[in-house]
Amino acid sequence: MSAAGNGPPPADTALAARLFDELAEKTADRRGVTRTAYGAGEQFAHDLVRDAGTAVGLSARTDAGGNLYLTLPGTDETGRAIIVGSHLDSVPMGGNFDGAAGVLAGLAVAAGWKKAGYALRDDLVVMALRAEESTWFPVSYPGSKLALGLLPPETLDLTRADSGRTLADHMAELGFDPETVRAGTPQVDPASVRAYVELHIEQGPVLIAEDAPVGVVTGIRGSRRYREARVLGQYAHSGAVPRAYRADALIGAADLVMRLQADWLALEAEGRDMTFTVGMFSTDPAEHAFSKIAGEVRLAIDIRSHEEETLERMLGLVHRRFAEVEAAHGVTVDPGPLTGSTPAEMDATLRAAFGAAQQSLGLPSFSMASGAGHDAATFAGAGIPSAMLFVRNQNGSHNPDEAMEMVDFEAAVAVLAEGLARLS
Amino acid sequence: MSAAGNGPPPADTALAARLFDELAEKTADRRGVTRTAYGAGEQFAHDLVRDAGTAVGLSARTDAGGNLYLTLPGTDETGRAIIVGSHLDSVPMGGNFDGAAGVLAGLAVAAGWKKAGYALRDDLVVMALRAEESTWFPVSYPGSKLALGLLPPETLDLTRADSGRTLADHMAELGFDPETVRAGTPQVDPASVRAYVELHIEQGPVLIAEDAPVGVVTGIRGSRRYREARVLGQYAHSGAVPRAYRADALIGAADLVMRLQADWLALEAEGRDMTFTVGMFSTDPAEHAFSKIAGEVRLAIDIRSHEEETLERMLGLVHRRFAEVEAAHGVTVDPGPLTGSTPAEMDATLRAAFGAAQQSLGLPSFSMASGAGHDAATFAGAGIPSAMLFVRNQNGSHNPDEAMEMVDFEAAVAVLAEGLARLS
Repeated sequence: MSAAGNGPPPADTALAARLFDELAEKTADRRGVTRTAYGAGEQFAHDLVRDAGTAVGLSARTDAGGNLYLTLPGTDETGRAIIVGSHLDSVPMGGNFDGAAGVLAGLAVAAGWKKAGYALRDDLVVMALRAEESTWFPVSYPGSKLALGLLPPETLDLTRADSGRTLADHMAELGFDPETVRAGTPQVDPASVRAYVELHIEQGPVLIAEDAPVGVVTGIRGSRRYREARVLGQYAHSGAVPRAYRADALIGAADLVMRLQADWLALEAEGRDMTFTVGMFSTDPAEHAFSKIAGEVRLAIDIRSHEEETLERMLGLVHRRFAEVEAAHGVTVDPGPLTGSTPAEMDATLRAAFGAAQQSLGLPSFSMASGAGHDAATFAGAGIPSAMLFVRNQNGSHNPDEAMEMVDFEAAVAVLAEGLARLS
Repeated sequence: MSAAGNGPPPADTALAARLFDELAEKTADRRGVTRTAYGAGEQFAHDLVRDAGTAVGLSARTDAGGNLYLTLPGTDETGRAIIVGSHLDSVPMGGNFDGAAGVLAGLAVAAGWKKAGYALRDDLVVMALRAEESTWFPVSYPGSKLALGLLPPETLDLTRADSGRTLADHMAELGFDPETVRAGTPQVDPASVRAYVELHIEQGPVLIAEDAPVGVVTGIRGSRRYREARVLGQYAHSGAVPRAYRADALIGAADLVMRLQADWLALEAEGRDMTFTVGMFSTDPAEHAFSKIAGEVRLAIDIRSHEEETLERMLGLVHRRFAEVEAAHGVTVDPGPLTGSTPAEMDATLRAAFGAAQQSLGLPSFSMASGAGHDAATFAGAGIPSAMLFVRNQNGSHNPDEAMEMVDFEAAVAVLAEGLARLS
């Protein structure tokens, strides 16, 4: 596929393969990998990619918030930049490909082209973004937001889930400049960016079911989240308190979950796009016992949809179910802060270019929506034409078993390179 | 109430009040008290009670498993023993009265009688039992079982929930003799025990609702428990995996809880006695994230009833619901070990004596069942006539807010003393 007579020179996917192996080895956890945002694992990955980029002759820059830019200059001095970006952090005990695949795909293209003396009219910028996995900080896409000067200043005071220390503190610890970030100074001039392209493993099973190695993304789901909701009842003896006297936080919370699950089914039946997930749910380890009725449950509610209207409708249902379980079980619900992100559309011209690349390489012309959020949503939201490519991947992502095959990665990198060449 | 002309001499409830205060102060935790079974808090309480008992002239003995016996000898050398017993451990961050009230009630009676030169025909033995709160070791009533030589030897190898160390290890650490316990050597000859009486705070709201300070217990609920059940699914990305491809352990577990809650309501509607409680329920803190579909939930199922038949019927329903949620959600259920205890009837003669004592003291003649388990169930199960008195108590038990009023404690101690005098 890499040798279509009139296409761009081949990408250096062997370099990518070596870097994947080194990342897996050096950021390994008890299971899978852990590359904590603004932590040791993510920093290792940034250093590795920066060194590899400069070794093949790309120019390197790290911005005030720690994002990395590796540039292959374009042939036209009046040209702008086409960014190929993704992130290098992972969820705790996640897989090796989520995020890293997009950065290493861009690097493979830039390295192959540099070696062949090939360049676009525009600069090709491989961008490694920070802190995309919002399991670490309760904010979506801080890396891309700070790059564009869009990160709300108070975000710097949010704390990382594992350390309890602020984003500003973690930035400063690694030698970056949180005060410049807090001032909202853009690290990239949006007007200078012609396009943002992000390659990512698919995080679901759709490309497997479709028998397609590569998909062109049509749009990215937005979200509404109550990440720190609490259901509060009354601790009491499990054997001695009749049902009528109970305020059982566990029953209240389980009932809440099942009511919202039923709402999801009803919205699905209407043909609406949505996911509803409670990934974290726990009685209080400091106070619970099998012989105590639970007085408190903490849970995280995650709702995603391509449709802003569906997000708002489900949010209304969430509030209604809160009130219902309060009335039914004598508990109170403290929803905690609401966070979320806006759905994003991918650029039609870019989608057409990558669709044509799929075709010219003899691959199925397959398009699909992204269920998960990605930094491309920030660029698209800022008015920068944006696109995403998905690579087929076994066992989903955010788990140690994700398993993209290198032959699929190579196909996706070929689509990326061919599409980029068509843009310039 | 303590001065009915022809009753026994008054109990020393002022001594009990001082000891309650010292226990509350010296075993305080962040909230409430923590008196870990075979840990520092329980041992402090045993030492305190032993010292207080010997100071008033009772003879003291600690058995091979750490149970304490304080004896006021009877007037008849051929007499047997009437044990007034309870436990001195607590749940984590529990209240000050659960368990301790029964021991201090017995001590108040024995101390008051000793001072007045009064004695029963039988020995009066105040017994402080070990490890009644089964939140610590996954076995019911190890203290009373070992006293009667009924503790299965393998129980010594069970581990304490907080330390992960075995019961034998903890016994040995405090200077007791786990090998004698393992051999099943009785520490008390059942034939020498005429009766076992246990005073305890009510752990529910019934005496408050009935406006009665003291209740005579008719029987003790038995139990069936899956304390380490697990629902196993598949971790996956919360936004990218459509519902049809999910094996969501949290949805499976929440559905299981709500199905069993519905079963409880149905059995209640039939007039059956039962409680169903899930006091511990958690996704895995090492692997969960708000953006990951949960791959595992751990939960503890606690079922209690006075009726052996109801326990078995609910257990059958539990197994049926396991199979249903497996089929409905693509998860598997690992129930883990089944534990439990048999319901116990209280002795009719003893109940009549304490009922008469209530009447002669001008208190409401109120009888009720015990929802919670108590060491009295072990003595009753061994064929020893057993009885229990409940004291009115605010806010339930197994929580820091339990709040028995001393005036109710004094009334219950008076019923205890009067009933004991009637027995002898």
